[in-house]
Amino acid sequence: MTRQQVSDDAEALAVALAEARAGRAEGGVPIGAALVVDGEVLAVGRNKRVQEASPILHGETDCLANAGRLPASVYARATMVTTLSPCDMCTGAILLYGIPRVVIGENRTFLGGEHLLRTRGVEVVVLEDRDCIELMREFVAAEPELWNEDIGEE
Amino acid sequence: MTRQQVSDDAEALAVALAEARAGRAEGGVPIGAALVVDGEVLAVGRNKRVQEASPILHGETDCLANAGRLPASVYARATMVTTLSPCDMCTGAILLYGIPRVVIGENRTFLGGEHLLRTRGVEVVVLEDRDCIELMREFVAAEPELWNEDIGEE
Repeated sequence: MTRQQVSDDAEALAVALAEARAGRAEGGVPIGAALVVDGEVLAVGRNKRVQEASPILHGETDCLANAGRLPASVYARATMVTTLSPCDMCTGAILLYGIPRVVIGENRTFLGGEHLLRTRGVEVVVLEDRDCIELMREFVAAEPELWNEDIGEE
Repeated sequence: MTRQQVSDDAEALAVALAEARAGRAEGGVPIGAALVVDGEVLAVGRNKRVQEASPILHGETDCLANAGRLPASVYARATMVTTLSPCDMCTGAILLYGIPRVVIGENRTFLGGEHLLRTRGVEVVVLEDRDCIELMREFVAAEPELWNEDIGEE
């Protein structure tokens, strides 16, 4: 199978954003991710709390699950691209596998574990992408209870 | 369905240990977990890296997945019981959902995010259970490559 090539962070984010939008269209939490290794999209994922009634399938973890079992040497060359600042769980997943670089669509609507990532030596790039911000703002306004459930709040 | 009752941490750990042993019998990574709320076992889980070819199904995350979607008010009364000190991902999952108490079978064979949990206000109890230690020591000696994969190492 030929994998999708991406030439820069903006292109990679567009792949993650397409996942997020697909999630919104399914009635889910619109957060998407892509795992990029050597300029290729190894896997994509999106939050599936609603779709699979799962509290552990966030964009990043679903993406890691879709990538399957990988050796540490592959994670060591990877960039995790996500439309939204990663929550504590997804931050931990990135740290567990030693992923050295994270590209974040935006952190205006939610600020996750970026400080911990940087403390542990991960390069964190925040693009503050307008489309990502708009997608989340619309969703949070429309579905506040679902959003709060997803981040463990009342 | 009547849920299993547990009267103390040792009984709860026995439930998690049974999951870990079931995982070993399946050829998997022998780490198990139980989510206990108000003295009842709400869900159990075990590492399913081998069984489901999943890098995100650790004992604790599989347990959270099996518990399904829960309101924050339930997590706020929960104890996560795990046979082994939680890795970064599982530490993050516990923090995401505001689980206030974690009971750990042992941290001699692997020390995870206990410090971060305590820093964030989580009560952490380490039982240093001999059966948990022995199960992991036997596994790590028998399957070092599988174990290293599970903790993101070469």
